[in-house]
Amino acid sequence: MQECIFHAFVHTTQHPFLKSYAVLTIDPSQIPTKDLHQYILGAVAPRPIAFASTISTDGIPNLAPYSFFNAFSSNPPILIFSSNRRVADNTTKDTLKNVEDTGEVVINVVSHAIVRQAALCSIEYGPEVNEFVKAGLTPLPSEKIRPFRVAESPVHMECQVENILPLGDGGGAGNLIICRIVLMHIDERVLSEGGRIDPHKIDLMGRMGRFYYARASGPAVIEVAQKVTDLGIGFEALPEGLRSSSLLTGNDLSQMAALTALPAPEALRLLAEEEAVKMARRGENAREALHQMALLALAQNDPERALALGLLGE
Amino acid sequence: MQECIFHAFVHTTQHPFLKSYAVLTIDPSQIPTKDLHQYILGAVAPRPIAFASTISTDGIPNLAPYSFFNAFSSNPPILIFSSNRRVADNTTKDTLKNVEDTGEVVINVVSHAIVRQAALCSIEYGPEVNEFVKAGLTPLPSEKIRPFRVAESPVHMECQVENILPLGDGGGAGNLIICRIVLMHIDERVLSEGGRIDPHKIDLMGRMGRFYYARASGPAVIEVAQKVTDLGIGFEALPEGLRSSSLLTGNDLSQMAALTALPAPEALRLLAEEEAVKMARRGENAREALHQMALLALAQNDPERALALGLLGE
Repeated sequence: MQECIFHAFVHTTQHPFLKSYAVLTIDPSQIPTKDLHQYILGAVAPRPIAFASTISTDGIPNLAPYSFFNAFSSNPPILIFSSNRRVADNTTKDTLKNVEDTGEVVINVVSHAIVRQAALCSIEYGPEVNEFVKAGLTPLPSEKIRPFRVAESPVHMECQVENILPLGDGGGAGNLIICRIVLMHIDERVLSEGGRIDPHKIDLMGRMGRFYYARASGPAVIEVAQKVTDLGIGFEALPEGLRSSSLLTGNDLSQMAALTALPAPEALRLLAEEEAVKMARRGENAREALHQMALLALAQNDPERALALGLLGE
Repeated sequence: MQECIFHAFVHTTQHPFLKSYAVLTIDPSQIPTKDLHQYILGAVAPRPIAFASTISTDGIPNLAPYSFFNAFSSNPPILIFSSNRRVADNTTKDTLKNVEDTGEVVINVVSHAIVRQAALCSIEYGPEVNEFVKAGLTPLPSEKIRPFRVAESPVHMECQVENILPLGDGGGAGNLIICRIVLMHIDERVLSEGGRIDPHKIDLMGRMGRFYYARASGPAVIEVAQKVTDLGIGFEALPEGLRSSSLLTGNDLSQMAALTALPAPEALRLLAEEEAVKMARRGENAREALHQMALLALAQNDPERALALGLLGE
């Protein structure tokens, strides 16, 4: 480890499931850019991938993947990606030159089926090389702009470049390419019956640090429904016994904290009369038994019952 | 479907494994913002999550998750997230007011262990509410700025806000909050033995559309090593029989296209003398048998052998 990196221990007793841990503290001005770059890539992930199709003033198509990319606004519809100056030699990339010259780019998405073809397009071929050919991808004419779409990608966003903002002039410096979507094409095979994009069908890849990608479909997809207008009671309204239980995680407690009200006294009274509850309360470890039942209720997607069981344990 | 959405069919015969498919084409100016918003959220994913901790001029901590977020530069180290104007009523959020007032934010990352606690912080509580308390998270003092870090998050990035760029003034408009990392803290339990962030240990969550999240660890993580300076031979150098094979996918072919040279004649001669290869070439479906063997070679991480088998099938 470099001497400019500091190690420390965080000690806390405020939260029952938070243990003391060692921390690596990094001052960005004190470590080489390439190392800082790797820490940022590892921490800010999974990143969506812009598979950017541009065309040079000579008419040569270019295709390259960028993961310093995201949507930032829906009205106007704005996507931003960064074509960074290379860390090694501070040079810039063909994509940046093309968008500077033409102001047009198609941002295609990267599904699992084409992830290695997209990776091929990250190879630093010269400006005379057409990456559609190198990667065996099919160029499809756009409707409003000149660059081609990638037929094998499930979503193509034809964009006008609104602005290019350099973030610095050294190696590793970003160049924000601010794009406005002028036309969006979605392969209907990735839509659900309700007409929305289905994560399992679109099967997108996210970029992680180093050589890692994340496949965002199948068992990796988790549903967390949280209405932002439902004012949850919060952790502070949960009984202390539940909050300090070693059985329940923060995710478990959150499901109860998201309820908009405590259980009514009548519901607690009825619950207390269930045979299993009576038995649990009579035992030696009454509280733990009730917390076990609360966990079961959460597994059955019934946080109201879980919270009521917790309250009976107080 | 709205009448302003167009359906079309893409027909192509250029690529053997690309079938004709129906396409939904959307003109952003012609559909309601809330619908466009959902299409963008479904297509630009998985998105990393900024768990943004700020503090008001009255000293009240605020904590909220934002997925219009990414890193954009490592020199200077720049993170950008957007606190968008609400689509429903065009109001703005506490985080935006706090960064406007104070110019400081801690961007924490969201691991699987705290994903529901982060979701709790997306609830629209009033500005007087401290989300650390609501979500049962532990505030940890920062070293260079006033807002607290989230102790349960594995990475905290203390940031100075360099600039705030509004992208519009209607509902759904983004406000880019451009942040410079001034200090980065990494929980050492998420580091590999080599001192880099391990995706399995940090166990990050990405945001998808609607109520979907993606867990970027375990079997969802895929390794695709592609040196950008190794000039792959490309799809156009692969034998036509391989490229048109119904057995091999684009990902399969890419592994051969990433090789930097075709197999040497001597290697082909030796391969042709293997008993199994001789048998395959004598059979009725010689080419298919060789392609099956090529697939096996790819599964054994030997693209050189796979390509040589393909060449023997021509």
